[in-house]
Amino acid sequence: KEPPGPAMKTNVPGRESLRLKAELDKIQNTDAVHFFVDYANSRGNYVVDVDGNIMLDVFTQIASLPLGYNHPKLIAKMSNPDNMVTFINRPALGSFPPADLVDKIRGTLMTVAPPGLQHVQTMACGSCSIEHGQKAMFMAYMRRERGGKPPTAEDLETSISGQAPGCPKLSIMSFNGAFHGRGMGALACSHAKWFHKLDFPVPDWPMAPFPKLRYPLEDFVRENEQEEQFCLEQVEDLFETYRQKGAPVVGIMCEPVQAEGGDNHASPAFFQGLQDIAAKNNGYLLLDEVQTGCGVSGKFWAHEHFNLREAPDVVTFAKKMLTGGFYYKQEQKATEAYRIYNTWMGDPSKIMMLEEVLNVVHQNDLVNNAADVGQFLLQGLLDLQKLYPGTMKNARGLGTLVAVDFPTTAFRNSVVITLRNKGVNAGTCGEAAMRLRPSLIFTKSHASVFLTYLEATLKDL
Amino acid sequence: KEPPGPAMKTNVPGRESLRLKAELDKIQNTDAVHFFVDYANSRGNYVVDVDGNIMLDVFTQIASLPLGYNHPKLIAKMSNPDNMVTFINRPALGSFPPADLVDKIRGTLMTVAPPGLQHVQTMACGSCSIEHGQKAMFMAYMRRERGGKPPTAEDLETSISGQAPGCPKLSIMSFNGAFHGRGMGALACSHAKWFHKLDFPVPDWPMAPFPKLRYPLEDFVRENEQEEQFCLEQVEDLFETYRQKGAPVVGIMCEPVQAEGGDNHASPAFFQGLQDIAAKNNGYLLLDEVQTGCGVSGKFWAHEHFNLREAPDVVTFAKKMLTGGFYYKQEQKATEAYRIYNTWMGDPSKIMMLEEVLNVVHQNDLVNNAADVGQFLLQGLLDLQKLYPGTMKNARGLGTLVAVDFPTTAFRNSVVITLRNKGVNAGTCGEAAMRLRPSLIFTKSHASVFLTYLEATLKDL
Ligand code: FES
Repeated sequence: KEPPGPAMKTNVPGRESLRLKAELDKIQNTDAVHFFVDYANSRGNYVVDVDGNIMLDVFTQIASLPLGYNHPKLIAKMSNPDNMVTFINRPALGSFPPADLVDKIRGTLMTVAPPGLQHVQTMACGSCSIEHGQKAMFMAYMRRERGGKPPTAEDLETSISGQAPGCPKLSIMSFNGAFHGRGMGALACSHAKWFHKLDFPVPDWPMAPFPKLRYPLEDFVRENEQEEQFCLEQVEDLFETYRQKGAPVVGIMCEPVQAEGGDNHASPAFFQGLQDIAAKNNGYLLLDEVQTGCGVSGKFWAHEHFNLREAPDVVTFAKKMLTGGFYYKQEQKATEAYRIYNTWMGDPSKIMMLEEVLNVVHQNDLVNNAADVGQFLLQGLLDLQKLYPGTMKNARGLGTLVAVDFPTTAFRNSVVITLRNKGVNAGTCGEAAMRLRPSLIFTKSHASVFLTYLEATLKDL
Repeated sequence: KEPPGPAMKTNVPGRESLRLKAELDKIQNTDAVHFFVDYANSRGNYVVDVDGNIMLDVFTQIASLPLGYNHPKLIAKMSNPDNMVTFINRPALGSFPPADLVDKIRGTLMTVAPPGLQHVQTMACGSCSIEHGQKAMFMAYMRRERGGKPPTAEDLETSISGQAPGCPKLSIMSFNGAFHGRGMGALACSHAKWFHKLDFPVPDWPMAPFPKLRYPLEDFVRENEQEEQFCLEQVEDLFETYRQKGAPVVGIMCEPVQAEGGDNHASPAFFQGLQDIAAKNNGYLLLDEVQTGCGVSGKFWAHEHFNLREAPDVVTFAKKMLTGGFYYKQEQKATEAYRIYNTWMGDPSKIMMLEEVLNVVHQNDLVNNAADVGQFLLQGLLDLQKLYPGTMKNARGLGTLVAVDFPTTAFRNSVVITLRNKGVNAGTCGEAAMRLRPSLIFTKSHASVFLTYLEATLKDL
């Protein structure tokens, strides 16, 4: 079913993509459109565009397609008429849940819950998952501050207009280079690119430096340790700074691998340190696994690589999980109605599709596949890096979360464009990184195609 | 197909709902769960719960089901294998749109665009529609402030950490009693209930009073005019107050009918006044039609009742539209890539379902139906109000956006619970209102059932 390899008819975007883009631009800004896709004819790891170009897709809808295009098991799931009712009648899940909700959540999200987390709330996308995860932390923090007492009449009343004490000055710490989403609360914790934030008022919340590791890691052990130590000290200081500013930090929010910010990794020791500093300051730890979850790291959740002494307090997910949501501890469970709530609270049709995704992941051992194929990809990049020493550097990865840097933004962009015109659709991130986010059914033979095409590109440039 | 009427076996929630609720409560807070639904057996305007109770549903998943349960046209749409590809391959719409996106948007959202608005951006839910609509206003405002000059290096740099001048102090004005969503930006404009906001830090943005009209309107013409005039003066003052506070107001955000806040209506003159004051202060006007759009008001958009001298700058939608999003003017169109953006940017499978919804709305003249049946409902409530003068008051409505007040919160709650146990599922809002939000296929005979059951309830209490 999957094409044997890339097959190109035009440069990308081709004529038909450009025509459609011009039409769409009458309705909305289209500057971020890469090309228009023929989804009906896309298969597995290959995306087909409207000009008939067949490309190996190592970006897969910004890391959001778990099983590639038109997976037969998902088609079968959709074809079952019993499942139709779930697509047609979208419930207000928080008030009128479907009869099978408990079974479906137990059979899907709870089977892959991060060790130590027994609660989960579905949401619709990464951004609302983050913002409600933040709220769970704010509520837990203030419950503790009130020492078990109920909120006062003044608390309730001032909350309506958004004033203290009902809406207290609190903050969440995040990192330079982080990206967590576009809602104002998620955006306040995002520090990756100007176009995410320019012109938008966001609260003054602490931004800590994220370690900038030097590669190859084995040659910079001491420097990297120092760098992480420095960042941890800043984190510790910011707790104090914002306490003094009157906007205490209720928790730290962090990606296990900073994705949009440039695929920036840190060591398990760094994350262990974050957890310790958070605890010491009576703060919580939220790990944002929207892009790193669902097996891509070679474990189901990337933070399982970190040997944390206990579970993070909140773990958010979306993208390949199809449904958004967050796992959390008992302490973060809401204690009143309508606190963590909105009209839809997710979408059971996405949970149904996730059910089939998890079946396939389990049956085909796709988490271990991600570990293996990721290792193979990374080794391939390390080998190419040796062949092109002035051109490619800092190859790094955790499972299939693999990236490599080029000397400049412009050079990186020409690599990605040339590669695409040859037949491989890759992503970018940070200043000068190429980001790989293949599906979970990506194999070593796909990785070989990618490496071959990348080498041809490097030869051309 | 639709049951002939309500048929109850137990009180609601019944034993099976309670059992499932206890199970779900191990995973998440369930205090907002009313009952568990047997979606497979629900039909048209009748919802069936897991205890076999058949209820007339005049709340319809918090106003979000356009055609009731399991509409045959939606089943047919889902059964077409050609449509499956749209459900299985969710695109990153902003970068890799499907071949038919332009046609689908033109054939759906553009056919019902509010007069004067030629642009639309899909989003996933009400909250992200609001927050991106806010961003469109912030960007337009700052573009104008920069007078056509590009942002400075300092703008770009400071935006990363969220400091001025890149992230300037700006605000959006909203109203006491408003509800716009749960993301921090939407929440900052929401002032309806403490449980939406308590413990959550939100920016200090201006909250203006919303008119509290006295009913019957014809008896309080002068008082209501004065009330609206007073509110408009406050709006005007708040522009000045926040200019002096250094957080200028870029726009006013308002629901055509305040829903969660208590089904509060205002006159066309009030909305005309808002538009004039906004313009005078170089601000924009965002009307939030998440709950009032899609024909329920008796016009496709509720603000079409207001005879505004020009279109509002931004109009948001979600709920019955199935997809979220916002319409906007040329001035609010983003001028750079990735400014109004996220991974999914909505979901084409929802646009596909909307296509069929709009077909049915058109073929069956459902907008005019909403006007007729709404008038019938309101008249029925006015008649009942006369029969139960100490009990029910302030019956009001615009199309099927109908509500009535009871003397106290507790009394309202017993009306709604008693009514539900008899076989009608209604909603609540504000302090003491019962809120009706039937589907678009709600007819006068359904309205008669509702009125009969309500009268029986009032007799009982
Ligand atoms: S904010 Fe997540 S779907 Fe709208």
